[in-house]
Amino acid sequence: MLTPFRQDTNSLFLTRRLNELGVDVIFKTIVGDRPEHLLCACRTAFSRADIVIFSGGLGPTEDDLTRESVAHTLGLELRRDHEMVAAIYTRAASMRMKVAENNVKQADYILGAQVLKNPRGSAPGQWLETQYEGQKKIIILLPGPPFELEGMFNDHCFEKLKAVVPESHLAFGELKLAMVPESQADLRAAKIYKQYPDIATTILAKPGEVLFHLTARAGTQPEAEHRVEELASRLEEEFADEIFSSGGESLEQIVGYYLQMRSATLAVAESCTGGLLGGRITSISGSSRYFKGGALVYSDELKREFCGVPPLLLKSDGAVSRSVAAALAEGIRQRCKATLGVGITGVAGPTGGTEEKPVGLVFIALSDGKQTEVVEKRFPGGREQVRWYSTQMALEMLRRKLR
Amino acid sequence: MLTPFRQDTNSLFLTRRLNELGVDVIFKTIVGDRPEHLLCACRTAFSRADIVIFSGGLGPTEDDLTRESVAHTLGLELRRDHEMVAAIYTRAASMRMKVAENNVKQADYILGAQVLKNPRGSAPGQWLETQYEGQKKIIILLPGPPFELEGMFNDHCFEKLKAVVPESHLAFGELKLAMVPESQADLRAAKIYKQYPDIATTILAKPGEVLFHLTARAGTQPEAEHRVEELASRLEEEFADEIFSSGGESLEQIVGYYLQMRSATLAVAESCTGGLLGGRITSISGSSRYFKGGALVYSDELKREFCGVPPLLLKSDGAVSRSVAAALAEGIRQRCKATLGVGITGVAGPTGGTEEKPVGLVFIALSDGKQTEVVEKRFPGGREQVRWYSTQMALEMLRRKLR
Repeated sequence: MLTPFRQDTNSLFLTRRLNELGVDVIFKTIVGDRPEHLLCACRTAFSRADIVIFSGGLGPTEDDLTRESVAHTLGLELRRDHEMVAAIYTRAASMRMKVAENNVKQADYILGAQVLKNPRGSAPGQWLETQYEGQKKIIILLPGPPFELEGMFNDHCFEKLKAVVPESHLAFGELKLAMVPESQADLRAAKIYKQYPDIATTILAKPGEVLFHLTARAGTQPEAEHRVEELASRLEEEFADEIFSSGGESLEQIVGYYLQMRSATLAVAESCTGGLLGGRITSISGSSRYFKGGALVYSDELKREFCGVPPLLLKSDGAVSRSVAAALAEGIRQRCKATLGVGITGVAGPTGGTEEKPVGLVFIALSDGKQTEVVEKRFPGGREQVRWYSTQMALEMLRRKLR
Repeated sequence: MLTPFRQDTNSLFLTRRLNELGVDVIFKTIVGDRPEHLLCACRTAFSRADIVIFSGGLGPTEDDLTRESVAHTLGLELRRDHEMVAAIYTRAASMRMKVAENNVKQADYILGAQVLKNPRGSAPGQWLETQYEGQKKIIILLPGPPFELEGMFNDHCFEKLKAVVPESHLAFGELKLAMVPESQADLRAAKIYKQYPDIATTILAKPGEVLFHLTARAGTQPEAEHRVEELASRLEEEFADEIFSSGGESLEQIVGYYLQMRSATLAVAESCTGGLLGGRITSISGSSRYFKGGALVYSDELKREFCGVPPLLLKSDGAVSRSVAAALAEGIRQRCKATLGVGITGVAGPTGGTEEKPVGLVFIALSDGKQTEVVEKRFPGGREQVRWYSTQMALEMLRRKLR
């Protein structure tokens, strides 16, 4: 975790679960395996927080020193759990393996701690209620692998913590918008959520998408939920049909719901996105109910072959044009016998741009057989972002058409 | 950064750059805006590290308290830079905006610190060489937005740090393998890299891909490079043609190089991956030189229509079968007039599996017109992982065919 390679995701999981209990996270520290650094981290943590959760360092190697460091800082002894030692030997025997001397370290527990079983791995966890500098502390040791940590926290720690922390009533809300710039969304939302100072509002943005996360805390659960609903409905008034989801669904999920609801089917013809849109649509389980398929028409030849784009149109207007986007959408719709057809053509860059048709210029068309809507966009950013925005715009056009 | 939503990426960037200078990162701490927590974090950091880098908390709001906390902990005064105050007012005037009282805080610097200009944003950084508890410390304050932090570190801090830290000679190496399980790769590599205890080896894995990262430190630069090369060539011997890249390239990039080298072209027919493979291939700039396009054949109808898969074959063997994968590969190759054709058909799940054709069963075919190779796989994991593995396998088959 102190290399440039690995992102810490355990703390995000733990923060989410702790927040659900009304517990705020006030410090996160990442520390290596050196004993003096571990002891320093323990002392600092115990002196400043009521609940301290460790992740990792519970394995059998010499570098796994979490147990030892916590025990030493608290002035508590380590005891060896003989049942667990037996289990380690039994397991090794069944696999015809020798038990390395270090391996039995995993059977050590801090005097007074409750051992937490780990059915997903070998290192057990520990739950300890103790005193440090005269203050009551809850100290939890969890294994490092996310799968083991999450399982152990959910199985053993969440309810135990709930029983000891002051009761708190929290409600959460989530609203998502597509193709609204973050700064604009923030500006429009700020005048509303500033009237709700008791509700914590977080704005998260990724290209072409903004998410408002609302957290209300109140004296009772209905009160907290009422507060969140109140702010959510004010935001829904402001953004009206720009909000595509208030239940955590992704844009591709929502488009899928609408297609099914209307018994409509979809086909796509992708030039510059080269499959990215199809890939997003088919990331949803059950998408075969409404997605027929389509064509990746990277070359002009295939634009003619798969979508029947007239060669003269390609010659007169160029492959990146309003008319070719429209021809792709209607052509693929007919060819796949779908209710709706989408066509995308553009310059994703970083090369291939001209003064007339610069990098980022993308035409996105949607045809229902009667009419074809074409949107012209000039997307910012590099190749990846231009391609992503293009698929996001196509999905948003589908949503608006179908809702 | 103490919410469940945001991952810390600044520290990964800083760690990479610091490691390049031979500086180890020993602690990372994430702390909120409360003054008592900030002061505690400052004291702890100054007492345990020689170089302390802060990111964030330099803006104009009341919550931006990094400057104040650092100065207070060191017992140093804050001074206001009058030139900078003037610049703040000039900028506001040019935008016809009022200067909020808080705004001028950004012109405060810690006595003795050198102010670091921020052409990418409004909050300047600071570089301070000072003493804490009798020890020499370098304290660097950087803005929080990654774009500003990275620019400021690269422009102002990297060379200054290089001048003050002990000279160190480091060399790096990177080897990538596709479709080799991590545990197997680790086992085979471990017996080799254990003979090079002076070289730090990190193994990173994502589905269908393993990366070995090597870092050697030696007395001279050529010596460090020689050590990395030696271990790299030993690993190359062990893994031979399983290694697809030793220069950081992605698998889709490598496949693109090979296709161009052999003046070959490619077409794909995707069923369960629905565009994911085309999306990966076209993520590479210049892919239009070798990628013709293809078809998303989610329905049986389109497998016939776009790839000429015989209806009888679909009926007798089913859409998820060795023969249909082969027919897709050769059909799309012919249809797109490409040198090579890839066909993918499978059960991505989580629904749609049967006893005979379970979730995770995927057939991947590669045809060159003379012969068609088909691989049958049973991939583990959920829908996303099965689909990703399928595209990874297709790319790896292409690489092996072309190399």
